[in-house]
Amino acid sequence: MENESLWERTAARIGGLDEAAMAKAEHKLDRLTKPPGSLGRLEELARQLAGITGELKPDLSNKAVVVMAGDHGVCAEGVSAFPAAVTPQMVLNFLNGGAAVNVLARHVGADVVCVDIGVNAELNHPELLVRKVRPGTDNIAVGPAMSRDEAARAIEVGIRIADELAERGYRLFATGEMGIGNTTPSSAMLAALTGAEAADVVGRGTGIGDEALSKKRDVIRRALDVNRPDANDPLDVLAKVGGFEIAGLVGVILGAAARRCPVVVDGFISSVAALAAARIAPLAAGYMLPSHLSQELGHRLLLEHIGLRPILQMDMRLGEGTGAVLTFPIVEAAVKLMNEMATFESAGVSEQ
Amino acid sequence: MENESLWERTAARIGGLDEAAMAKAEHKLDRLTKPPGSLGRLEELARQLAGITGELKPDLSNKAVVVMAGDHGVCAEGVSAFPAAVTPQMVLNFLNGGAAVNVLARHVGADVVCVDIGVNAELNHPELLVRKVRPGTDNIAVGPAMSRDEAARAIEVGIRIADELAERGYRLFATGEMGIGNTTPSSAMLAALTGAEAADVVGRGTGIGDEALSKKRDVIRRALDVNRPDANDPLDVLAKVGGFEIAGLVGVILGAAARRCPVVVDGFISSVAALAAARIAPLAAGYMLPSHLSQELGHRLLLEHIGLRPILQMDMRLGEGTGAVLTFPIVEAAVKLMNEMATFESAGVSEQ
Repeated sequence: MENESLWERTAARIGGLDEAAMAKAEHKLDRLTKPPGSLGRLEELARQLAGITGELKPDLSNKAVVVMAGDHGVCAEGVSAFPAAVTPQMVLNFLNGGAAVNVLARHVGADVVCVDIGVNAELNHPELLVRKVRPGTDNIAVGPAMSRDEAARAIEVGIRIADELAERGYRLFATGEMGIGNTTPSSAMLAALTGAEAADVVGRGTGIGDEALSKKRDVIRRALDVNRPDANDPLDVLAKVGGFEIAGLVGVILGAAARRCPVVVDGFISSVAALAAARIAPLAAGYMLPSHLSQELGHRLLLEHIGLRPILQMDMRLGEGTGAVLTFPIVEAAVKLMNEMATFESAGVSEQ
Repeated sequence: MENESLWERTAARIGGLDEAAMAKAEHKLDRLTKPPGSLGRLEELARQLAGITGELKPDLSNKAVVVMAGDHGVCAEGVSAFPAAVTPQMVLNFLNGGAAVNVLARHVGADVVCVDIGVNAELNHPELLVRKVRPGTDNIAVGPAMSRDEAARAIEVGIRIADELAERGYRLFATGEMGIGNTTPSSAMLAALTGAEAADVVGRGTGIGDEALSKKRDVIRRALDVNRPDANDPLDVLAKVGGFEIAGLVGVILGAAARRCPVVVDGFISSVAALAAARIAPLAAGYMLPSHLSQELGHRLLLEHIGLRPILQMDMRLGEGTGAVLTFPIVEAAVKLMNEMATFESAGVSEQ
């Protein structure tokens, strides 16, 4: 046991949902002035949040979206519509409050926590968490993205950040990411973890044309051929065809789950991290909350594998945590409904 | 012209969306630091809101859900899981702030405006708008719900309320309703307006069993046979197989559209009102914003007829405006994104 690493200890610490709290939530929901079950997935969310936190009235008002940023050697293959220089440029945009995720976070009262876990540039800003494992992965089309040890360290960066944020009082998390080229490793990971065909899980990312899409499919096939990731070893998959920000988000999810905090999972890249987290620690899936169905091909399949049903259908495909942050008010609404609605008795309303 | 009634004048006053403002919105959205179109339907909403208001930065923070309440003679046929007495009981619950819609409205900073347009009880409360056309409709299984004149008056109640609220500074509306039994007239209206089979548009409402569902289908068939509503005359459909709260919501939608204010359309019953409003004034459809896909059978078909794509997939089936109010933060987010995000130039981010 004492030789186990932080990520293994954290994964082992994740427990099941609190069944007693969920039963209490169920009972409470059925006394409220509405036909039983008529609030649909808001009732599901309320029950799940009770199971996660062990409380019927968890205070989720302190909430953060963790945006992990990293670069990708595979950009050398021309798989993205944008140049790799956009990764550090967008990190500065996050820090200056000008990106979509900043606007949405301000709108819903959440904080953006920006992490350089593998950006290929020297970035300094008082609010940037610099936890760089390395300035970008290697090109997965010709070899592994990173070493197994680096993958473990990237996961542990995420675990420590979730831990620090929980210590500072944050109770509701969302996953976000930035990394030009990162739909390519994400698709490769999805194919490796599920056995899906590359053609079925490769989308247009930020908006590539037909020719680049065909090249991207080929790159992913080569990445899988060259690296032969082991589907039964999520760390191997992360190391061989993943990315630093993806591994970091695996850590955020494991860390939040170990702390019994709910994590809203954003789009395609975040969902790949969620799938890897669930493979490492199956009980972690209980702490994940769904957000939106991305336009990225493969996201639907991915969510089915994790067992998450999307709430929002917005045709978004931006990442950054935007869809997850937009879901925060719905998560908070579920808790408020359970606690602030009148009961049939208190309101004097007749029952069925 | 001077003989035209208020509802006809209002319908005639509804104009098209402001194409110039929409083009400006489009241009602005494409300069923001994100791949073009990657915010999906948030961009659609931002454009539509510009078209509706004529402004790129409309202030939608003053928002109201109008909850119209009415009773239904058809309850005598046993079509609902709840007794009709629940309609006035729930109105009092709204006024006391204990219903689901109140909790959600407080959560998102909206006001609940409760209207007695046809409740079968004497209700008095300082915050209740008593605009009763009559205390409940007649049983549509044996004759018309109301007279044509009453239907017109109910629509005009809604128009006046939208007008008053717009005068008081409200700029974003949602439709809500309460009326035990009202999925029955709604299904009848949907069948009448679209020619759909009763079996395809009749659902379980607040939660009836198989036997009651079969009876409800039969009641709707009888209502259509007895009343023979004219599909080309929405007022005839409303009068013969509708309800006071449904007609009132038609008025709210027409009134808001005439004032160039967006209206978020809630679930099944609200959507029937929206369809009727769009039949009365086709340009009104441009002022409608989608919310959720209800669990009520027939809602999907209904939304297709109106041309609204739901944003939320929550399996809700409560009405009251709950799904629409839950969509308010998303609508406001769209405007904020368009106005608060950095541009490629301002943030120094490279383009494709």
